[in-house]
Amino acid sequence: MLRAVPHTGELALIQSVRERAVRRGGTLRLGIGDDCAVLRPPAGHDILVTTDFTLEGRHFRRDWHPASSVGHRCLARGLSDLAAMGAAPVSAFLSLALPAGFLQKAAGKRWIDGFFNGLLALADRTGTPLAGGDTASAPGDAILADIVLVGSAPRGTELRRSTARAGDLLYVTGALGGAASELALLAAHPSRFVKAVPSEDHPHLFPLPRLQAGQRLRRAGLASAAIDVSDGLSTDLRHLCEESGVGAIVRADALPLHPLLAKSKDTLQGALHGGEDYELLFTAPPSARVPSSIRGVPVTEIGEIVDGTEILLEKNGQFSPLLARGWEHAL
Amino acid sequence: MLRAVPHTGELALIQSVRERAVRRGGTLRLGIGDDCAVLRPPAGHDILVTTDFTLEGRHFRRDWHPASSVGHRCLARGLSDLAAMGAAPVSAFLSLALPAGFLQKAAGKRWIDGFFNGLLALADRTGTPLAGGDTASAPGDAILADIVLVGSAPRGTELRRSTARAGDLLYVTGALGGAASELALLAAHPSRFVKAVPSEDHPHLFPLPRLQAGQRLRRAGLASAAIDVSDGLSTDLRHLCEESGVGAIVRADALPLHPLLAKSKDTLQGALHGGEDYELLFTAPPSARVPSSIRGVPVTEIGEIVDGTEILLEKNGQFSPLLARGWEHAL
Repeated sequence: MLRAVPHTGELALIQSVRERAVRRGGTLRLGIGDDCAVLRPPAGHDILVTTDFTLEGRHFRRDWHPASSVGHRCLARGLSDLAAMGAAPVSAFLSLALPAGFLQKAAGKRWIDGFFNGLLALADRTGTPLAGGDTASAPGDAILADIVLVGSAPRGTELRRSTARAGDLLYVTGALGGAASELALLAAHPSRFVKAVPSEDHPHLFPLPRLQAGQRLRRAGLASAAIDVSDGLSTDLRHLCEESGVGAIVRADALPLHPLLAKSKDTLQGALHGGEDYELLFTAPPSARVPSSIRGVPVTEIGEIVDGTEILLEKNGQFSPLLARGWEHAL
Repeated sequence: MLRAVPHTGELALIQSVRERAVRRGGTLRLGIGDDCAVLRPPAGHDILVTTDFTLEGRHFRRDWHPASSVGHRCLARGLSDLAAMGAAPVSAFLSLALPAGFLQKAAGKRWIDGFFNGLLALADRTGTPLAGGDTASAPGDAILADIVLVGSAPRGTELRRSTARAGDLLYVTGALGGAASELALLAAHPSRFVKAVPSEDHPHLFPLPRLQAGQRLRRAGLASAAIDVSDGLSTDLRHLCEESGVGAIVRADALPLHPLLAKSKDTLQGALHGGEDYELLFTAPPSARVPSSIRGVPVTEIGEIVDGTEILLEKNGQFSPLLARGWEHAL
């Protein structure tokens, strides 16, 4: 947990996290300042936990991504994992290591301010108190972060990857390929995105985790299985099928394309394999009344679950194997 | 959470974590393999969470520390935070980033084997399933790990730093200064420690978190406040006093010295300021029947809590200010 060891800079960092983090309230009984945080989730709920790295040079570049986007994305990755299981966030924990001397420079202080602005704005928007974490000096020049999300869901109701059945229909929330498309634009024109703010227009810089959609699907008992599309539709569908022991057919013409993707030259590849969209991919039996949108987020039927292990793409009546080609973006 | 993205090496790493981790059982309902792990702590318990970095060059050196020690220490840091609050471990989550190509080399594979041997041996010993985490390619040459510990304690019973009162007596478990003493030996003769195994003889390489002592103190209602001595007695006592709004007097002659420290030339400084002993520092009212040992771990009265904010060292009847000089070891 956060320790006030007398390292130059580290004390200042801990202080700024403390000042900006929520100390307690609701399910958070004790936040930053003791050896552990103490949480009291709703009675009769299970606890869900997920952790995600955000490493400079792997998940972001300081010369491309505004600091507020790095903070937002750091939290969004974990929230999307909770969304995929239909859970509500209880608390977040942030481990953050900065290069030596980082906070002694004005640019470093500005970066940290921006990072926390982005992270805490999404935390506020989603009701996720930042309850603790750790700080350290990074061993190199790269900023290193690891986010932990703790969530809860009524006992035994969480959505899983492993429970899809042949005959279920396949759905996705929102639109596909937007994050990869925006990343390509960002790589070409980073300065254009310096003042970007969270919205559906920025699927790479400010992905909006589908917490409400996930919770609605769980509460209403609509989904038979779910996963988030963080590694690309083709890869995450394979995860879902492998864990469930089923195959699938995806209809190329049904895929919802993000407006940013629609401008690119190979929209199908972008929709199938572009990663980091943080949408939900889920299955539901044909009898389920799946709404066409949840709180303004479109829900689109894109195929079906079948017996076997093959995952096929249907396009103009032709079937071909859909290979898992999702990727993490090479920065 | 663990993602099977097709990075060379990362898949192999995930696979080795998966194979060696416990998948479920007891309070762990769903382990590695979905977007989140699902935990079901005992009814009527609060959830405790702590996160701790283990960064090469900051917390360990590959040329000094056996890999099994790095894995052991990684988990021990988090377990000690649970111990300090009297909690029982529920699950651990490990985020691990390795330098590019690390697992393609025999030395890298051996290192990872040793790391998991150390981590999972302590996990077994303490009943802590490894339930998930994340993997990534490290941006530099340093190995980066972040451990998350989730624990539980009956509602509202956790031991805190902030609840010590004037008149309480001050106690510490085990012995002080051993970790810093062993680190000095390690720096001078790293090859001597290659085959070290966990025991009280290796307070730096294999610290044994005081989980049973912490839980006993909580269950028996003996302690009024507690903290772990990770940053050195002088620094952690200050944390406890500041959070509780009290002062303290420490009796120099009462401090329990680790046998490794007893050989050094300034035993008092080592006992007061040597960090990473991972013992418990706690307070109890004079009426409490504090045992002289808990499960073989000595418990020593070392001073008392007083009104005010001053922390004093008493030596041969003389009182002097006890400054917080704890440190993280500069490697």
